[in-house]
Amino acid sequence: MRGALRLVRFRGAAGGAPRLGLEEAPGGDLVDLCAAEPELPRSMREFLEIGPRGLALARRALESGQHRVPRASAQLLAPVGDPEKVICVGLNYHDHCEEQGAKVPKEPLIFSKFPSAITGPFDDIVHPQDTSELDWEVELAAVIGKRGRHIEEAAALEHVLGFTVANDVSARDWQMRRNGRQWLLGKTFDTFCPLGPAIVTREAVPDVHNLWIRCSVNGHRMQDSSTRHLIFGVPALVAWVSRFVTLVPGDILLTGTPAGVGVFRKPPVFLKVRERGGSRGAGERVGTRWTQLGTDATMSPLAARG
Amino acid sequence: MRGALRLVRFRGAAGGAPRLGLEEAPGGDLVDLCAAEPELPRSMREFLEIGPRGLALARRALESGQHRVPRASAQLLAPVGDPEKVICVGLNYHDHCEEQGAKVPKEPLIFSKFPSAITGPFDDIVHPQDTSELDWEVELAAVIGKRGRHIEEAAALEHVLGFTVANDVSARDWQMRRNGRQWLLGKTFDTFCPLGPAIVTREAVPDVHNLWIRCSVNGHRMQDSSTRHLIFGVPALVAWVSRFVTLVPGDILLTGTPAGVGVFRKPPVFLKVRERGGSRGAGERVGTRWTQLGTDATMSPLAARG
Repeated sequence: MRGALRLVRFRGAAGGAPRLGLEEAPGGDLVDLCAAEPELPRSMREFLEIGPRGLALARRALESGQHRVPRASAQLLAPVGDPEKVICVGLNYHDHCEEQGAKVPKEPLIFSKFPSAITGPFDDIVHPQDTSELDWEVELAAVIGKRGRHIEEAAALEHVLGFTVANDVSARDWQMRRNGRQWLLGKTFDTFCPLGPAIVTREAVPDVHNLWIRCSVNGHRMQDSSTRHLIFGVPALVAWVSRFVTLVPGDILLTGTPAGVGVFRKPPVFLKVRERGGSRGAGERVGTRWTQLGTDATMSPLAARG
Repeated sequence: MRGALRLVRFRGAAGGAPRLGLEEAPGGDLVDLCAAEPELPRSMREFLEIGPRGLALARRALESGQHRVPRASAQLLAPVGDPEKVICVGLNYHDHCEEQGAKVPKEPLIFSKFPSAITGPFDDIVHPQDTSELDWEVELAAVIGKRGRHIEEAAALEHVLGFTVANDVSARDWQMRRNGRQWLLGKTFDTFCPLGPAIVTREAVPDVHNLWIRCSVNGHRMQDSSTRHLIFGVPALVAWVSRFVTLVPGDILLTGTPAGVGVFRKPPVFLKVRERGGSRGAGERVGTRWTQLGTDATMSPLAARG
């Protein structure tokens, strides 16, 4: 797609600080943007603050064919590591409302995670000892590229740089029965927001409301829906949130999850601590009181509906 | 107090970018830390990330007697403008639970604001047209100075750099009856978190649980209590929150408000749009659909109990 970019953040084979890059194709090799344009900032948020000039330099780097990094030698990170806001929407798919017998909301239901919850798309989710109801929620995420407040719905997509995939990992016990029923804590444990790998710019997505959205757990397809079933689409959500707050480049808007989460299955299914080397419980990190998660809850790469 | 500092952020008479500084005494003149130590970062969050070395340089600048800025020529800003997290606590004063007939919580109730809500301690609060129940909540805020997760209560104060004053401005209609009763939106409109002016380092506060805490609206004392009446004290809150998330330098923890908010008065009292030049409603900013607030909701400077 003309002008489309797949923006990533990665760590090279030698480790070191995170670098900005471009994915040549879904799952393909990378171009090292920091090597191609050393004067660009190394934080995606600061890069997005530059606006069109930064994107033009990124296109030039992609087209140069230089500074290529083989996929296998890069560790892909969350494309934005330090957004000002991680904005989330509850009950925003018709099929997700149906599976729990909830009324379709008349207004978007907005909550949040702290940016500290963000983790890489292929990193482990850490299973807190503090929950016994750890659940998945695959989501389409919009990435804000342009500052705005009181944005009109008709102009809202101009404020969206592109899209990525997120998982709104949730501790259902904390979300639904603890903390005075304020969802924040159950949604914001460290690593509860896997994100990425790529931000696909808007040009590559002809219709954001006609994308498949899927989540697999241990190889089993658990969520399989389409953004057609969104109740409030991306422009409506951007307009709504900007009634309250100023949106800024790098802000992440998780748009809600479709049907198929664990808590509403009969019987409910929750994520478990991974067994390692055949020895049950060996995945526990003793001393930190954390345990690791036992899934390969795949981040489905964003693609036009297949 | 030996070693104590009053850290501020300010804009000089010539305007320009925010600068870090030190208040010589409550309400006194400033020392321009950016002029004294040009290599220090200009963001308070990045300054706090440096840790003890940065604080040592700040002490040296204060003791030098140089780079002084008269109070009257400085505009004081929120001391931290870009924290990763603004963490808030609900129902955390015995007198505030009593005024609303609420049970004393057994666990802290945690919610949040987006950092975009932060505004300067002497700036206007913008009254959104979207609410008719705008309320005040003066609060003691702790500022995190040292990274940590799973912090023990006994060690929790080591992670607190110091304290400042916040106002947890709240749109009660949005908090209590809209957005699926998730408090976030009613708490996070732009300018709903006045903060500052100074971060008073821990050394200056012999007992953080014995400070007066007051809020005036249009010259009338509306809240007048003591941090003695906190249900969960600062160490307990730091330990609790760090069960869920990694705390990092610059994080702001609002510890809850005492009795005297508007919504529980009989009859309820809410903040109004300020009248300007005798012409009612002239404070409205036409075109943005924002209106300005009609109070001088004073940020009581932090001090030992008077």
